[in-house]
Amino acid sequence: MNESRFDKSMLLDFYGELLTDKQREYYDLHYNEDLSLAEIAEQNGITRQGAWDNIRRAESVMKDIEEKTGLIRRFSETQAALGGLKSRLARLREISTGEAAELADGIMLEVEALISRG
Amino acid sequence: MNESRFDKSMLLDFYGELLTDKQREYYDLHYNEDLSLAEIAEQNGITRQGAWDNIRRAESVMKDIEEKTGLIRRFSETQAALGGLKSRLARLREISTGEAAELADGIMLEVEALISRG
Repeated sequence: MNESRFDKSMLLDFYGELLTDKQREYYDLHYNEDLSLAEIAEQNGITRQGAWDNIRRAESVMKDIEEKTGLIRRFSETQAALGGLKSRLARLREISTGEAAELADGIMLEVEALISRG
Repeated sequence: MNESRFDKSMLLDFYGELLTDKQREYYDLHYNEDLSLAEIAEQNGITRQGAWDNIRRAESVMKDIEEKTGLIRRFSETQAALGGLKSRLARLREISTGEAAELADGIMLEVEALISRG
């Protein structure tokens, strides 16, 4: 897994509830809310090192779970497959008329809902 | 979550790698391979109670993770949506011809792959 912000958020989305409150909160503030370690430390009356220890530990716990379970990987594969399916469906919709076009529209909405819901 | 064997297997499929080796093994033997506690105990040179303690603990750990993360619930919702989508797609396939029918066939295969892969 590369280290994009999207991956950091995905880890929290999947496994955040398995963290301690502090781990989850500081990790969220740092990676989702873009607060610096100094800002998190000041807000919470802790040291910069204390903030970082919680964030690093949070990431380590969640990466370990993902390495063992592969649930984010599986999810990402499903999302990729839905993306491919959506392209074919768009072409099918283009060449359909009448009831077929309506069905294709309905299916497209469902696929889009699955993609955006995750 | 009800207590069907399917749910027991699903817990292991999702979270089994987060258990200890013994927890995973005895849980799998009991719920997937249908071995009795006495059989598991005898095979592994432990007491029936020892086998049960591991299995109960395994289930408790995995249910706790599922209650916190809801990942199996999310997955099940996606599978249900794909099932609905498949029905509409079957109807669309029925009334399509030529390129549209080919596209519908291809999409159907992808949907079925997503459903069976999980």
